[in-house]
Formats: sequence, structure tokens, C-alpha cells
Amino acid sequence: MNEREKILRLLAYRTVLQRFRSMGFIRVFSDNIAEVLDISSSLVRKDFSAFGISGTQKGGYHIEDILTRIQGIIGFSEPQRVIIVGAGRIGQALMHYSGFRSSGIEIIAGFDIDSARQNPAAEIPVLPMELLEDFIREQKVRIAVLAVPESSALACFDRLVRAGIRGVLNFTPHKLKGDAGTVVSNINIEHELTNLIYLVNQQWQVPSERHTIIS
Amino acid sequence: MNEREKILRLLAYRTVLQRFRSMGFIRVFSDNIAEVLDISSSLVRKDFSAFGISGTQKGGYHIEDILTRIQGIIGFSEPQRVIIVGAGRIGQALMHYSGFRSSGIEIIAGFDIDSARQNPAAEIPVLPMELLEDFIREQKVRIAVLAVPESSALACFDRLVRAGIRGVLNFTPHKLKGDAGTVVSNINIEHELTNLIYLVNQQWQVPSERHTIIS
Repeated sequence: MNEREKILRLLAYRTVLQRFRSMGFIRVFSDNIAEVLDISSSLVRKDFSAFGISGTQKGGYHIEDILTRIQGIIGFSEPQRVIIVGAGRIGQALMHYSGFRSSGIEIIAGFDIDSARQNPAAEIPVLPMELLEDFIREQKVRIAVLAVPESSALACFDRLVRAGIRGVLNFTPHKLKGDAGTVVSNINIEHELTNLIYLVNQQWQVPSERHTIIS
Repeated sequence: MNEREKILRLLAYRTVLQRFRSMGFIRVFSDNIAEVLDISSSLVRKDFSAFGISGTQKGGYHIEDILTRIQGIIGFSEPQRVIIVGAGRIGQALMHYSGFRSSGIEIIAGFDIDSARQNPAAEIPVLPMELLEDFIREQKVRIAVLAVPESSALACFDRLVRAGIRGVLNFTPHKLKGDAGTVVSNINIEHELTNLIYLVNQQWQVPSERHTIIS
């Protein structure tokens, strides 16, 4: 969890620094980054110091230096091939998500049980589930996105892991557990939205109606 | 952030307990819940104790009691109406996401700048962006999901907040900041997948190739 937060922070730094660079900036201050990301500037400095990045004499950091260092830590030296299991609305949306390619991620195939959704001739082919295991083994795929209905989540996950998948980004509401050999990230859209609504309701209720929440 | 984690944990307890109940269980032990959610059982007990939920004499907890208590804290007494801004692939997928309704969330409209995506007659109407502000005010909507292209994210966010939106679930890669009056949850799909791949690569590389990560 902690490691996860750190990597996500690195990715956030990269995004912000690329934006600063595209605006013509050469140097930034930790305060600039902290403001945009809504974190403390001391955390930014601590992170940078831990990367071995030091500030310039005039203060601030060279954007290019930090970006090179971050790329050395989290950049991929070759395209990262990913499959998507479940080609319903969410799966299809992810299959065509434009942000992946710039990160070096390539969606190489989708899989679906429904023949109406299959299309082996598409630019990103959607293949029948029967081909899942052979495809993973032949293509040496290690990463899968899971976007099947909740009722199929666990069975699909087991198939993926047995076939050699080592990382699963899970969009189903069924929370999956990784183990020593498999990393799982769960994104529960319903919980995220419910949580947001809860926080807004708390904030905008009259005080006497507020519930006490665990501390 | 901490509050967010707590609410998400409550939601996770609810999901797991509903599943246990549907399997015929009456009581559970903190260990049962902890195992499924991959957290420590002492954390489960601490949370339950903070809700004022105590165990039974025989040990364990009554599922129904905990569910009632959780519902009292995070349940919605009336349907929570939400709009989706941006009716591209991600927006459309979210508009038809089946998990929302059971949580008391109702997607009442989508908005898009592209007339080809607009459909005021659909069950969930997709309306032109020109109608956004009036709709929010007339319908007293407080929650929006943002699924527009990155380049429009900030401008759309500003329009939403000015029109009275108090909570935004942001699926664009542009990280948005809430303030005293607005709650924002950012879901960066690209970062989540990149992070997952990084963790898998770390785990499956030969040790000498591993990068050192900030501690």
C-alpha cells in the first residue's frame, strides 16, 4: 500500500513536470509541484532527496533532471503488453483508452465470452475466452485488466493466474486478493462514487445531522 | 485521505457481509472478514468497536447488526442523483454501469459537446453542454462524474463548480484539486495500470536489475 502510494506519486510528479516543461519552464520549486498536486512541499523535497535529486544553487530543481531520474525508476524500456478480459462497455472503453500508449502500454487483445463482441480482425482483436490461456502462454503476457461481470470475476482471475498472469487491474466489484506471485489493484467505481457522495453529504448537511465516523 | 480510506473500508465491509449473508451465514468472525479483504483482523475489530458494534458472547459478530449499523452511517435515505460530463467511451460505460443503482445512485443525465453523442430522448438523456449549468441548477445536482478529454478537464471542472456541483469523480488524467466547498476524487486509470506493471516488473526481474525505490 505504501509502495503503491509512492509509485503513484512518482507518476503524478512526472505528469506535472511534463506539463510545466510544455509551458516553457526549465526549473521548478517544490512549492510549485506541491500546489498543483495538493500535497506538502516537504513531501516533494523528501521524495526528490530520496531519488538523489538535489536542488540548484539558486533554489529549485531542473525539470529535465527530475524527469530523467523518474524515467529511470518507473519508465519501461520496452512496450508493456496487456490484455483486457471482458469486452463489455468498460472493457471496450479501456481497450481504446488513449492515455496508455504514451506510457508505453500496449493493449494487444481483448477476450469475451459473447461471440457478438468477438472480432479477431479488429486492430485490437477481441478473441473468444477459449483462446485465453494459449494466448497468454504464447505471447508471454503478464498483465491483464479484468472487466467481466462480478459473477465471473473470481473464475476469470483464477484462469488468468494459472495461465501465467502476474498483475491484474480489477474493475469488477469483486475485490480480488493478490499473493506472493500476483499483484492485484482493485478499482471499485461504485465504492469510489458512493464514498464521494458520502463526503459531500457530510459537508453540506446541517451539523446536527452529521453522523460520527470512525476515527 | 484517511477519512476516504475509512469510508472505502466501510463499503468493503458491507459488500463482504452482504455476500456472507447471501451464503446463509448469520455470524462472522473478524478473521473471516479480514481474510477476504486482505487486511488485519485487529483493524476489523478496531473499526467495529469504533462503530459501537460489539461481538456476541460466543465470539463473532451478527452480520445483520453490522449491516444495519453501516447502513446508518453510509446509507443514503434517498436516491443520489448524479450527472456524467463527457459521453465518450468511458462516459457511456459509466452511464450504464449496473452497480450504481443498488447503491442508491441514479445517473440522471449525460452531457457532451458532440451532437452525434447527444440524445435527449434516451432513457438516460445525453444533452448538449450548453444546457449544463441550467440543468444543474434546476435539478439541484451536487455530484458529477467527469469523463471529458484531458484538455477540457479544467474548464469543465470550473463550470461544474460554478454551477453548484459539490463533488466530482474525475476520470480524466488531469488531476483536479478540491477545496473547502468541493470534494474531488481522482481516478487515473493510466497511472493505476503503470503502477501495477511497475510492481510486477520489480517482482519478476532478477534482483540485480531491480531499481531502488524511495523509502
